[in-house]
Parts: sequence; C-alpha cells; structure tokens
Amino acid sequence: MKSIRVGLVGCGTVGTGVARILLENESLLKARVGADIQLRRVADIDLKKNRGIRFDKGVLIEDASEIVDDPDIDIVVEMIGGLGAAYDLILAAIKNGKHVVTANKALLAVHGNALFSAAFKKGVDLAFEASVGGCMPVIKTLRESLVGNRIESMIGILNGTCNYILTQITREGMTFKEALAQAQAQGLAEADPTLDVEGHDTAHKLAILSALAYGMTVNLKDIYVEGISGITPLDIDFARQFGYTVKLLAISKNFGNRVEARIHPTMVPENNLLSGVNGSVNALTITGDRVGDMMLYGYGAGMMPTASAVVSDIVDLARNLLSGSRPLRIPMMSYQKNHIRKLPVVPIGDIYTHYYFRFSALDQPGVLSKISGVLGKYGISIQSVHQKGRKTNGSVPVVMLSHKAREKDVVSALSKIGAMDVVGAKPILIRIEEEVQQQ
Amino acid sequence: MKSIRVGLVGCGTVGTGVARILLENESLLKARVGADIQLRRVADIDLKKNRGIRFDKGVLIEDASEIVDDPDIDIVVEMIGGLGAAYDLILAAIKNGKHVVTANKALLAVHGNALFSAAFKKGVDLAFEASVGGCMPVIKTLRESLVGNRIESMIGILNGTCNYILTQITREGMTFKEALAQAQAQGLAEADPTLDVEGHDTAHKLAILSALAYGMTVNLKDIYVEGISGITPLDIDFARQFGYTVKLLAISKNFGNRVEARIHPTMVPENNLLSGVNGSVNALTITGDRVGDMMLYGYGAGMMPTASAVVSDIVDLARNLLSGSRPLRIPMMSYQKNHIRKLPVVPIGDIYTHYYFRFSALDQPGVLSKISGVLGKYGISIQSVHQKGRKTNGSVPVVMLSHKAREKDVVSALSKIGAMDVVGAKPILIRIEEEVQQQ
Repeated sequence: MKSIRVGLVGCGTVGTGVARILLENESLLKARVGADIQLRRVADIDLKKNRGIRFDKGVLIEDASEIVDDPDIDIVVEMIGGLGAAYDLILAAIKNGKHVVTANKALLAVHGNALFSAAFKKGVDLAFEASVGGCMPVIKTLRESLVGNRIESMIGILNGTCNYILTQITREGMTFKEALAQAQAQGLAEADPTLDVEGHDTAHKLAILSALAYGMTVNLKDIYVEGISGITPLDIDFARQFGYTVKLLAISKNFGNRVEARIHPTMVPENNLLSGVNGSVNALTITGDRVGDMMLYGYGAGMMPTASAVVSDIVDLARNLLSGSRPLRIPMMSYQKNHIRKLPVVPIGDIYTHYYFRFSALDQPGVLSKISGVLGKYGISIQSVHQKGRKTNGSVPVVMLSHKAREKDVVSALSKIGAMDVVGAKPILIRIEEEVQQQ
Repeated sequence: MKSIRVGLVGCGTVGTGVARILLENESLLKARVGADIQLRRVADIDLKKNRGIRFDKGVLIEDASEIVDDPDIDIVVEMIGGLGAAYDLILAAIKNGKHVVTANKALLAVHGNALFSAAFKKGVDLAFEASVGGCMPVIKTLRESLVGNRIESMIGILNGTCNYILTQITREGMTFKEALAQAQAQGLAEADPTLDVEGHDTAHKLAILSALAYGMTVNLKDIYVEGISGITPLDIDFARQFGYTVKLLAISKNFGNRVEARIHPTMVPENNLLSGVNGSVNALTITGDRVGDMMLYGYGAGMMPTASAVVSDIVDLARNLLSGSRPLRIPMMSYQKNHIRKLPVVPIGDIYTHYYFRFSALDQPGVLSKISGVLGKYGISIQSVHQKGRKTNGSVPVVMLSHKAREKDVVSALSKIGAMDVVGAKPILIRIEEEVQQQ
C-alpha cells in the first residue's frame, strides 16, 4: 500500500486533534483513500505534556527542522499559530518543496499574499480549509461547489465565542461582562478575549472569504470592525420586541465594481435561519447567482471540528500525490493569479442600511419632535418608534427603527442629537440586516 | 488556453440550466479554472423548443451518438432522466472512455452498482453531485470534507415538493389535497406526484447517501418508505401544541454492524434547525464522530441550483484532466471498492423511537384506561396524554406521546386498540425524532 508521509509542527489543541484523527481513524482513512496517511513526525517544544496519545518511538520530536528538512515528508501541517514562527516554518517548508496545511487565519489575513506567492512560485499547495468556519467546508464550497456561480454575498456568524456570549445575553439576560466570564469559565473564550469579542478574528475570516469569493485582494484595514462589548441586555430586549435577534455578523456584498466587507453587531429578523444559530456554533449564508441562498452550519472551532478540516486538507493533497495530479490543481485563492483584481471596499460611511437607534431622553413634551426633526434634516426616515417605561435618572429610552439610510448621515445626525440638552448619554446605533434569506 | 470539451445529452429544464451557466458564466469559469470549458455539442430530440439560448451553429443536434462517439469530447453530461435511454447512454459513453456527469438519482439508486462497476473497470469517472440535494454539496462533503470522520447519522429534508406541501398545511391549515394542488399550480409538483409525495424520491437519495457515508451497498427495497399523503391539519396542529413540527425526514443511522434507513413523516422538536426549514428548500444534518453535528441548507431542486451542482462536477473532472490526475482520484462511492460492505438494514419493526398516537375514541368514561392498558401490555409507556374538544360523530381525539418503544410492539398494540368497540377509525401514528441536534 502506498504511503503519504505527514509531519505535524505544533501539538497543542488542534495539533493534538489532527494527530488523534490520523491515528484513531487510520483504518477508516485507508478504506477511503486507498493509501496509508502516515504521521511520521510531530514536533513540539513541550515533549512531556500528556496529550492522551501514544506516539511510536521517535515520532515526537522537539526540532521542527527535522520535519521541514526531511526529504521523505510530503506534507507539513503548521499548527503553531501566531505570526512569527509559523510564517518562517511555512516559508521553509515551501522552499523545500513540501505541500503545507495550515489553520492560521491571522497569518493568512496578514501575510497571505507573500505565502501564496511563494507556494505558487515553488509549485506547491498551501491548503487552509480549517482557517475559516472550523468543520464547515466553506473554502471547498466557494472554490469547488460554487465554481459556476458569481458570488453575490456572504453573511455569517463566524466566531463561536461571540455567538455564545450573545446567546447568553439573549437567553439569560446577562450583561456582556457576566456572559464573557461564563464563556471564559467554560473554555470558550481566551483570558484576553479582545481578538474574539472585538471582531478581529471574524474580520480575518471575512478577509479570506471575500478574496476567495470575489477574486480580489483584501486589505484587512479596509474591513470595518465593531465588536460586541457594547451590547446590553436592554438593546437585545428591544430588538426582540421588534422581532429581531442580535448577532455579530460578517457581511460581505459584491456590487461588481466594489464590495462591502464589515463586521458588527447586527439585528437579524427572527424568521431568518441565522437568528436560530445559537451557542458556540457558526453558520454562513452564501448567495450565488445560480444557487440562490445556501447555508453551511457547524462547529466553527474546538479541537476536533477544526482538526477534521485539517485532515480533509491533508487528504486532498494526498489524493493529488496519489493520482499523479500536478500541484495547484485548484488555484489556492480560487481564481487564476492573473484574474485577481483590486476591488475597492466601500467605506463604512457610504453604506446604506436599516438602523436601530436608542436615545436616552428626558421624559418631557417635544423631545421626540426634536429628535425626529434632526433625523429628518439628514434625510433619515423613521419606520417605527417605541417610547415607554424604565425611567432612569429622569430619562426614558426612545427607540427608533429607520428605513435605509446612509451611515455618514446617521453618524452626523446622532452626533447632533447626542449634543442636545434633552438627550443624555451617547445614542446607541445597531445596524439591521433585512436582506438575508427569509424562510 | 487549454480547452475541455463537453457534450450535453438532454436539454430539458436542468440541461438548459447547465448550458446557460457554461455559456453565460464562461469568463467567470475561465478565470477560476484557467481553461475553456467548451460546450461542444448539445443533443436533444426537440430541436425547435425555445430554450432562451443562442447556440452556435452545429452545437444543437438530434443524435446523441454524435456526442458519445466524438473522440474530441472529454466529458458527457447525461440530462435525459429516467432509467432506459439514460442507462444506455452512460454505458456507451463509459465504453468510449468518456467521463460522465449525471443528476439521475433514480437511475443510480436502481442501477448504480452496474454503472459504477463499468466506470471503474474502464478507468473513467462517473460524477453525480447533483443527484442529491441540488445545490447543497452533500456528495463532496461526505467524500472529501468529512473524510476523517466516521459518519454516525444523517437526518434531512431531501424533497422540496413534500416540504413545500407540509409547510402550507402547517402555515395555512390546508388539507394535503389543497396544498398539493397549489404545489402543482406553482410547478413545484409533477402532474403525477407519486414519486415525490409517497417518499420514493427521498428514498433514492437516502440510498445514495447511506452508501457513500457508511461504505455499504444499499438495496432500495430495504429502506422503509412512507409518504405524506396521510398527513392532516389536525395532526399538525396537535404536533404544534406539543412543541413539534411535522417534516418528511430521511433518517439514516450507523450502528457499526447494522444501519437504519427510513423515510417517513416525522415530528421534529421546534427548537431544532430542521423544523425551521420551510418551503421548497432542502437541508441535511450530518453527524460525524469528529465534527459533531453539521448542516447543509439550500435549494434541492430547480433548474439553476441543480445545474450549478452539475457544473461543479464538470469542473472537478476538468481539473483532473488539466492537472494530469489519473481518473478515480476520489473513489466514486467514497470508499475503495474492496472496503465496501454489505450491512444489514434494521427492519422497520425493529426500530426503537418515540411515537405520537391519535385515537378517535368514544367520549365515555374508561376509554383512556382501556387504551393505555393495551399499550402497557405491549411495554409502551406514555409520556403525555391530551384529550379534549372537537367531538365528531360522538368521538373525540385522544392524543398520546410515547417514550421510546419498539415499532413491532406499537403496531400490534395499535391493531388491538383499533379493533375496540370504543375506538373508531384507524389509529394514527407519527414517529418522533428527538435525537436531532438541539440548538
């Protein structure tokens, strides 16, 4: 039986998951692939950690260069994470003609262009299914299943930590801080949760997806990012009264000559499937010009769901080797290199969408008229208003839903309204996404 | 630029969709594939029909043998449908060394073994992504994305016609007949709807999925099939009162040495994602030992969603040809030939599940005790009982939900109960699926 030899660098959570699948499901993989996917070497700086795996003698080593420089190794799996050592390792592996599998979305979002160029020049594959959406096959679906479609939009929940926190605020009425503490206690959030809760992890993923879907280069800094740390039970409660659920959405739309790419808390209609995606799960709606709306749903993180995606990449590359396929059978970035364009990303001030506003206003006659007067002056028309109860420090919440308006105008109007004597605190703004697939 | 030459046989609804994607999205396909996917010939018995396409001269022909025998054609796309001509065409194409793409689930469910064997022997690929789930990439997900997983179960809505009808009964309180008539008026159901509404189309699809997921041969006749024509607004209404939605589910479970494979109307808990899949859409939940539960969702039929899946197959095969890959890069049936087993399918009488019963009983003391006495004798324990209102002809509906029970015992008990003087009409039974993923 033929053998494909794999070297794994970094045996932390996901790396351990990959090793376990390759070892525990070895006979299943043989039955499917018709070859032995051999885990030849595993490099990690911590040789003593108990990973629940009994490696054969000589498999677990300390020095990654013994993998990268081993001429017998076909595929190098980078599971180190971070931007430094992982970058150097992948470049070294490419230089030595190895195919590489990674799940490192931060690295790809920041240094993707350099790494893909190096792989392309050397004629090796750099596979990254596990970098976005865990076990959901988002990369494969965009590059292969939807190859005949012009992708029109992608809207999704791509960070399980944020979705867990928002679910807890919604279901249990917790504050953000309480829900975050619970997520940390359950191992669903890091000690420093900034990357997740401020939306940056989601932005890394949307950068990769937009590049693949639209055939464009994406600058991370062009993506508007707003996290969930400002979300309160009060706003979630109002959202529910209007028939919405609050989710941290990654939103990307293709207008042909420009795209939208933004991450922010969003009110989603309750009859939309995304509003029913709860807990630490991910989901992505993709709209293609031929398929209409489709959706993928599954665990977007965690040892095994992510490791499963890594293994699918390993097998894809193994199948290329076994079938005699030349590398780059599928272009890594979904489009041929000479067809990848620079496309402008619409600045957040220029988007048009629906809005939810919450003002903290003095409970006296004429306030509503003053507020709506300013909104009217900026061309923002109101769909419904809600004003009642819960007086705090003499103020009442005034909640409004707007028709489609330009963000720039909204920001100007809210700044004017926030400066009024009759309005306390800073006005709250949550964008509404009405255009996702209704059931 | 390299060229892959495609011959399309059968230019009906889906065939026309395939032609349109290849022609209308030609430049998009070039940008992604790096080659020209050339629609060289289209054969159809009706040359005069207006398909909204302007074929180049000589492309549209009457005689399919001009495609099958053309040495320049690389890939033959079978869009004839049915079991006769389609079977002969595919065999002839294979004999001539062509790779074949089909969406013909009925053909594969009945003659799949013969066709796959012929393709294997000749060393060509027979691709069939569009045969199940329309635009949802179910075949690719099972064969590639979940390759490292032991598949534990698949539960899904695989027939858009049935789901549309059930949605209408649920939302509008229509009878089955009314909802069917509406589906027919909207082109969502055939004039003879038997294949769809009696569950056979769903069974064809589940046969294919079970084979791919578990590495087994499936006899269509081993799959228990029960359609939706007996579903009434009354039962759907009771289901709602208990917190359930009624769906026609394809249910397949892998117990290692045996499998379950069955199609029947099923009560699904309302907090399950499948219960929120409405209208003519499909969805499939797949549970893998590594990924846990994941779900695919999208249009399972219709010209363009199905054609999109056919095009993804064409491109997969084109990429094999362009990259110099040997055929059968991925085993057609997901497992290597020598690893495909015969696995027994559990007879429906031997399954254990939860049940909903509705009895039409005389409104007099002691009836409930008689009914539950018989159930108890057969070891069927009741979780809740509902008895009220709606007297018709002196009878009232008595509704019960059972704990897990064996179907054989349930059938015996219901037959005894149905024969009682105090019980009119035939008792109604709907199976309940509690084991699908909860949110």
